[in-house]
Amino acid sequence: MNFFFNPQGIAIIGATANPHKGGYNILKNIVTEYEGGIYPVNPRYSDIEGITCYDSVLNVPDPVDLAIVFVPAQIAVHAVKECAQRGIKGVIIQSAGFAETGARGRAFQDELIRIREETGIRLWGPNCMGLVDAVNRHVFSFVLPAIWDYGLLPGNVSLIVQSGMLSAGFLIDTVSHGTMGISKACSIGNKVDVNECDILEYLIQDPDTSAIGAYLESITDGKRFLKACRNTKKPIVVLKGGKSEKGASAAMSHTSSLAGNAAVISGALTQARVTEANDFKQMLDHCRTQAAYPDARGKGKGRIAILTYSGGAGIVSADFVDQMELELADLSPRTLQQLTKVFPEWMLPSNPVDMWPAMEKNGPEKVYKTAFEAVCSDPNVDAVLFHVFIGGIITTMNISPLVDITRKHNKPLFMWLLGKREESFEFQKEVQNLGVPVYRELHRAVECMSALFAGHGHK
Amino acid sequence: MNFFFNPQGIAIIGATANPHKGGYNILKNIVTEYEGGIYPVNPRYSDIEGITCYDSVLNVPDPVDLAIVFVPAQIAVHAVKECAQRGIKGVIIQSAGFAETGARGRAFQDELIRIREETGIRLWGPNCMGLVDAVNRHVFSFVLPAIWDYGLLPGNVSLIVQSGMLSAGFLIDTVSHGTMGISKACSIGNKVDVNECDILEYLIQDPDTSAIGAYLESITDGKRFLKACRNTKKPIVVLKGGKSEKGASAAMSHTSSLAGNAAVISGALTQARVTEANDFKQMLDHCRTQAAYPDARGKGKGRIAILTYSGGAGIVSADFVDQMELELADLSPRTLQQLTKVFPEWMLPSNPVDMWPAMEKNGPEKVYKTAFEAVCSDPNVDAVLFHVFIGGIITTMNISPLVDITRKHNKPLFMWLLGKREESFEFQKEVQNLGVPVYRELHRAVECMSALFAGHGHK
Repeated sequence: MNFFFNPQGIAIIGATANPHKGGYNILKNIVTEYEGGIYPVNPRYSDIEGITCYDSVLNVPDPVDLAIVFVPAQIAVHAVKECAQRGIKGVIIQSAGFAETGARGRAFQDELIRIREETGIRLWGPNCMGLVDAVNRHVFSFVLPAIWDYGLLPGNVSLIVQSGMLSAGFLIDTVSHGTMGISKACSIGNKVDVNECDILEYLIQDPDTSAIGAYLESITDGKRFLKACRNTKKPIVVLKGGKSEKGASAAMSHTSSLAGNAAVISGALTQARVTEANDFKQMLDHCRTQAAYPDARGKGKGRIAILTYSGGAGIVSADFVDQMELELADLSPRTLQQLTKVFPEWMLPSNPVDMWPAMEKNGPEKVYKTAFEAVCSDPNVDAVLFHVFIGGIITTMNISPLVDITRKHNKPLFMWLLGKREESFEFQKEVQNLGVPVYRELHRAVECMSALFAGHGHK
Repeated sequence: MNFFFNPQGIAIIGATANPHKGGYNILKNIVTEYEGGIYPVNPRYSDIEGITCYDSVLNVPDPVDLAIVFVPAQIAVHAVKECAQRGIKGVIIQSAGFAETGARGRAFQDELIRIREETGIRLWGPNCMGLVDAVNRHVFSFVLPAIWDYGLLPGNVSLIVQSGMLSAGFLIDTVSHGTMGISKACSIGNKVDVNECDILEYLIQDPDTSAIGAYLESITDGKRFLKACRNTKKPIVVLKGGKSEKGASAAMSHTSSLAGNAAVISGALTQARVTEANDFKQMLDHCRTQAAYPDARGKGKGRIAILTYSGGAGIVSADFVDQMELELADLSPRTLQQLTKVFPEWMLPSNPVDMWPAMEKNGPEKVYKTAFEAVCSDPNVDAVLFHVFIGGIITTMNISPLVDITRKHNKPLFMWLLGKREESFEFQKEVQNLGVPVYRELHRAVECMSALFAGHGHK
């Protein structure tokens, strides 16, 4: 599978000089940073933007590991034949017009299967967006080259997606909002040959991937998929599309997928320690949480200390902790004693730790430091949920020393952040660069913490 | 109750010239736009920033309806006595140090109750942030004057909150992120006299309020509260804090509240057609949804048409619609025929309507117009969920004519928006100014639609 991700030479079948076409985007995206041989194939050009263009893949010089195909289905079948003849190892077919379009397209797809079986060539797609690798800066996709400007923040989460949207639009949304970076995003489409199992097994071995998220409309080989999930320590999060009858019928027309029985799939995923997501962004939130704290994963009921500036938010956090099979940490006498030193006389410290009156008395810096030292050195505490507001007069805070305290004591830190749009956005990026996950909704923060400690989704 | 919101003359007891103190903020916030008489009270000043200051409220000239008190608890009790003596109608006591701090503070609070009973003066608080009215531009609160810059976007949702945070930080977060505007935000604290029932009944009559959200740690008079909810057509959304045992114990120390039995409260709220929220931002999302489409409220299972650019997102939407007691609309033959005109030959239109292949063939404008006309004139459709991506090459879209189509046919429109941060933010504000609610998470969009049609929270 490595020749798909790190090929020696790429042929682009259907490359064009017309900037409104996908075949132009593919070439442009590859030229941007790929350092191997680049070979556009299109009989209508002798060169495209100064790069020699070939009339057939048969005439492309060595070495070429990978071909990317973006021509109508009928022509694509012929091109794939030539790729096999030429000894190319893998083809990513990004064109649509196959099984998802009815009987005629189905026949083309069957033809691809036949070529695959006869020649051993590996086929990725069709009807997909290919792959984006933000760490190695490979964009093997017809996605708009605009993605380079704000879709390629490198991270340690990789994605397998049976939806073009997640490979392109979602990256732009996620990266531009400072939610997270991405390692590899793989759009697999109709899965004529390469399927979620092939890619999952590759990503499990991939040193640039710490957690794997998958949006799937069908699972091709359930046994193999679950075995791979069971046998790795890397966290895997799955959002299954087509759980309802009508959703399943839509999945059939989208990627020609048989959705399967939702309850059976859910049960099997839980047994294989997979976190089941229920929405797109939530899937990414689960992934980045589990990638941030691999050692906390599956440790059971985490005992949580809540540090807040708001009594109300502390109470609702305690409710969530209770609902979602975590525990509110029972702070030790030593911790309570430390907190008493900065608290006003009338206020008995407890968990949730409402720091506001103490901050009014002693200033935020001193209270934060005391509270972090106290709860992080407490043997009854497994993790810290910290509420922060940024905006108005407080435009930032000195977060790095507090993160250091949590690291010293090996206590995972999670932040729920509210605030004015600009200042809190800058602060969020700063905190996440320190490796601390930030959430904008309180329920989501606790939900992700719960799934992390449980080692799978909470119910 | 109207003298709290629209008083003739305000005395500010504890006003100060020190800009680091809450007593300064209160004065500053009132001076900014309030047009009645303003009377600072503090024996240490003869004037503050050019406004005559009085040594006692007894010497303040007429008319004065309202006093705001921000002095230590012991002095506050004395000041309230003088207010009653002076014939002032209501006092908002914003100082802390009462029942939430133990026996000594409890005694001060008991003294307030006694004054209230003996004199009939109305008391709001103590231990609260007062009120913010973004429509009439009244800020009767010690909240930082920075709130004027980005916390006062007028809207038609009012809030009752037993948490200072929601009155200040949350407004800044919500308004600066373009989520919604607010009408009145009322922080009620320890509820020595004025409680959620008083304010709920006032807001039900308030022409500037179309929906009411309440974060409550206790419900003082359940019978009266539920009766008010049952007897109004205005949507009411409640987030109950202290549902768990530990959350309830935290609520006791926060606002000295007895949280009550969560299951009993949930059942009663549902019977009274109240939507029960489970998180802070989600509560606001429910409120703005229900305020946007009052006529759709409680109409039962809404039949939803999904218009999407992404097969995958359409499938997951269909799953949510099924899970959350809505119905996927069964599009009429006429609608399918209209869609066929813009769809590629190989693709049979169905719901969810995956418009992407049609857009590649005919361009987005034509496809949007055809699809909106078709589904909005379909008698089998009650509402439309529209997926939009903004960012990269698409920096905006011509949304106004599409909204007009939905209005002409009286079909509520809901938008799930993804996109690049800046462009999608500007677009979100544009769409919401047209009265169409925009959501950033798909699950949340469907959840809010479901609660709207059900007339209460879905389970």
